[in-house]
Amino acid sequence: MTTLQTTLMTPEITVADIPDGSADKRLWQLFNPSTTTSSTEMLVESRISEMIHDFLSTADFSSSIEFKSLVRKFSDSRIPAEPYEVTKYLDRLSDDVVIHSTRTSSPRFIGHMTSALPYFMRSLGKLMAAMNQNLVKIETSKAFSPLERQTLGMIHRLIFNQADEFYDRHLQNRESTLGIITSGGTLANITGLWCARNRTLGPQDGFGGVESEGLAAALEFYGYHGAVIIGSNSMHYSFEKAADVLGIGRQNLIKVRSDRHNRLDVAALRKKIEECRLQKRHVIAVVGVAGATETGAIDPLPEIAEVAREAGTHFHVDAAWAGPLLFSRRYKHQLTGIEQADTVTIDGHKQFYLPMGLGMCIIRNPQLAKSIEKQARYIVRPTSADLGKRALEGSRPSTVLFLHAALHIIGHSGYEILLDEGIRKTRYLADSILSRLEFELLQEPTMNILVYRYLPERYRQLAASGELSDSDNQIINEFNVRLQKSQREAGFSFVSRTMINSTRYRTGKPLVALRTVIANPITTESDIDEVLLDQLEIASRLESKSEF
Amino acid sequence: MTTLQTTLMTPEITVADIPDGSADKRLWQLFNPSTTTSSTEMLVESRISEMIHDFLSTADFSSSIEFKSLVRKFSDSRIPAEPYEVTKYLDRLSDDVVIHSTRTSSPRFIGHMTSALPYFMRSLGKLMAAMNQNLVKIETSKAFSPLERQTLGMIHRLIFNQADEFYDRHLQNRESTLGIITSGGTLANITGLWCARNRTLGPQDGFGGVESEGLAAALEFYGYHGAVIIGSNSMHYSFEKAADVLGIGRQNLIKVRSDRHNRLDVAALRKKIEECRLQKRHVIAVVGVAGATETGAIDPLPEIAEVAREAGTHFHVDAAWAGPLLFSRRYKHQLTGIEQADTVTIDGHKQFYLPMGLGMCIIRNPQLAKSIEKQARYIVRPTSADLGKRALEGSRPSTVLFLHAALHIIGHSGYEILLDEGIRKTRYLADSILSRLEFELLQEPTMNILVYRYLPERYRQLAASGELSDSDNQIINEFNVRLQKSQREAGFSFVSRTMINSTRYRTGKPLVALRTVIANPITTESDIDEVLLDQLEIASRLESKSEF
Repeated sequence: MTTLQTTLMTPEITVADIPDGSADKRLWQLFNPSTTTSSTEMLVESRISEMIHDFLSTADFSSSIEFKSLVRKFSDSRIPAEPYEVTKYLDRLSDDVVIHSTRTSSPRFIGHMTSALPYFMRSLGKLMAAMNQNLVKIETSKAFSPLERQTLGMIHRLIFNQADEFYDRHLQNRESTLGIITSGGTLANITGLWCARNRTLGPQDGFGGVESEGLAAALEFYGYHGAVIIGSNSMHYSFEKAADVLGIGRQNLIKVRSDRHNRLDVAALRKKIEECRLQKRHVIAVVGVAGATETGAIDPLPEIAEVAREAGTHFHVDAAWAGPLLFSRRYKHQLTGIEQADTVTIDGHKQFYLPMGLGMCIIRNPQLAKSIEKQARYIVRPTSADLGKRALEGSRPSTVLFLHAALHIIGHSGYEILLDEGIRKTRYLADSILSRLEFELLQEPTMNILVYRYLPERYRQLAASGELSDSDNQIINEFNVRLQKSQREAGFSFVSRTMINSTRYRTGKPLVALRTVIANPITTESDIDEVLLDQLEIASRLESKSEF
Repeated sequence: MTTLQTTLMTPEITVADIPDGSADKRLWQLFNPSTTTSSTEMLVESRISEMIHDFLSTADFSSSIEFKSLVRKFSDSRIPAEPYEVTKYLDRLSDDVVIHSTRTSSPRFIGHMTSALPYFMRSLGKLMAAMNQNLVKIETSKAFSPLERQTLGMIHRLIFNQADEFYDRHLQNRESTLGIITSGGTLANITGLWCARNRTLGPQDGFGGVESEGLAAALEFYGYHGAVIIGSNSMHYSFEKAADVLGIGRQNLIKVRSDRHNRLDVAALRKKIEECRLQKRHVIAVVGVAGATETGAIDPLPEIAEVAREAGTHFHVDAAWAGPLLFSRRYKHQLTGIEQADTVTIDGHKQFYLPMGLGMCIIRNPQLAKSIEKQARYIVRPTSADLGKRALEGSRPSTVLFLHAALHIIGHSGYEILLDEGIRKTRYLADSILSRLEFELLQEPTMNILVYRYLPERYRQLAASGELSDSDNQIINEFNVRLQKSQREAGFSFVSRTMINSTRYRTGKPLVALRTVIANPITTESDIDEVLLDQLEIASRLESKSEF
């Protein structure tokens, strides 16, 4: 028996009697810093605060270290036999990790969804780790379970705007589910389609349903030759995961044609559904994309809703990106039709300005999630109010606090300003691009995502007259890949890169696009100018060095 | 255009020119507290620190508020049109949420997995929210991606202990996957079985594989009548979710008999596999439970491994609970056989002493996860090192930092002490129960989970001689349900409740059990005594008031 064991188990001996510096004392202090001296915890807290301050106030978004060299710092696969002193670990954390981390909040880091976040999120992150609630069951989240239900109800109301009586009846009703918090949008999309699959292939006439008997038995019982999910080719890659994991198969995720604005072609959708009907392929769900990840395009939701209703199928809207447009009087019309969805995905860590780790599947019909309900004997019992009864995840943290706080402190009117601002600045960038011969705007922006590319000098004339050939575009593609990589490596400013289908040039082959996401409230017009100037400089160096 | 818009976009005007108190200024300050006065952020930080201090130092694990009254505080489903001042929100957070939250770290809250956590986790929680890295891709987690690979390698080594060359080759190799971080154990179990399903029903001879063509087509191609997953009836309910979501069907999750120690009966497993072979039902995986959620029992892993190998099937071990026993020289033999698993689930928020939100699926063969790989055009491109290529989740937070820090600061030797201690204290509780006629130990503990029950006075004789009838047990069951609920409502101490299959009494009907999990380093023997005394007092009140 170690000293700690003796001590803890013998009330008349106190912790002070454990020899200082022993492994036992050290461990005890980790879990009880206040029993010795509170200076330890304060020291750590102040070191971390310094790291945060330095990190957030660094101008460049990335250190200059090469990825290969950075990787070498993480090459030891042995768990330290003997523990590090906390301060030694903090030194390493600072030198090897924090300073080489991506400053995702930088005003010139406009390539992905991340942004500066409201400062109070940091303190809430600490509070959440300290309180360590587990949302799977009431017994470990007595106040957070009703708080989560309230928060989901707020988002449900934002989308579906039901009458007061609806919310009075369902908000805190353990039989109802207005939404499910997930770790992110991918799980939210999977959750929506899981509900769709289980409801449309449910129990009937002695058949236990797909939930109980499996997909092959369900298709056989219902007389289908396979099952499909249909959406446009702008669907996020999480739908491929969903189709795979749900047993439907990736090739049965049917991507119908988009128009030249990258919006789903409703006639093509209608035709495809009819085709599936004739082939006896079961349409589990039709997907509308509200904010394509690559271009920001929003599908024609009212028309898709109508097609889904006529076909009697589930309508899922992936509004991970565009959902918060609902806050904006100026732009919410773009989401008209979303209120006809059966399930809607929204992400907290995109335009809700929350830290990573929160997605939602919002569910119109409060009974739908019963199709995925599970029980256990130690928690989530049939009559319990435990939120884990209807969810893909089990034990999970109280990340909903980030959203609850933001809905109150930013508020409806604050989100409206933030959303409008992102779109306005994106327009500024679009206009800057249009005014420069060096760049080509690849699509008029719908919201705050923009795709464009750089044109090496010798292609500008051809581009202007729409006469670029396949091989020209191939060279321009390669140039833009090199441009994006060089810009990223330099660490001063950042845009991301994707490939989009263009209809401007004859071939319709995918073009490499530079992609920006402008959501950061601290990104100014001059930051945007600097990003473009950075690209012009890098591009001119690349052009002078090569045969372009 | 609002003032903020004008200001931010006009470099010659500074933020100081925006009128104080305007919505724009307010928003700007949320994202830039330091631009005005740093006192705002400090004020919030200090309020939150106070809340944390008060919360962690409250003696009772729960406030006395009734759940029904608490729920009424969260009945408004409208998003505030006008924002709250931060301080007003903090008042509400403190009064309505924090003080009524479950103090999961209380030394007398010994009913679920939660424990006091090392204090540095709180500062790390803040750091993570501040840095807001996104692990889906290198571009938003330059240092954290290799750090995550290193951490997963450490756990892989702990379980599989391969040669140095193995880790030199695979640890940071983008073609290799030694494990996948998930938001919790449920997703880790789903991930392991997803890999199993996709590998065993993979592409072959012109068939695209289950991943591409779906489960019904795969079963048909391979000539199977259905697919199953086999384990014991101690499997966690997440396996029911897995069987459902993967399209296998809950009734095809086959639960074979356990012995009287709640360990899988290997002969029954062998027989069931043979039966499936004859019926041409495809065995996707055999599951070994290492630490049953309800009793802590550990299945005979070496024998199950042998059966799985002979049957040529995937062997998944759910070591969410017991995995960290590998740190203990005294107890790691109980996990012998785990090194033969194909995939292993481990939870960070259980015996790794991390905050909620981190599970892992550790994968023996570095190529296995290719069976679930997905790509996109804007990230996770085929040749990238992006971790999101092989994962169920997409964007996700840097929770791996909690684990990386703990592995260094607690270290191998620290975890050994913590694990041994939890088991020793559980033995203390078991002995206390055995020494009192009022209680009945329902199973000898394997690790730090214990099940027992209270016996009302008139049943003690019958229990001692093993003569309780079904209806006696029914009454005792009801009594223990009431006891657990009353104890929970009183808020002084807490154990959880489940139902277990007992072989002690003739009928074998499930018995209601009181369940403890003793992991908390600050739980002492006197705390354990107090939990039992609390139960004795409550039970005696209940007995005197009723016909028991």
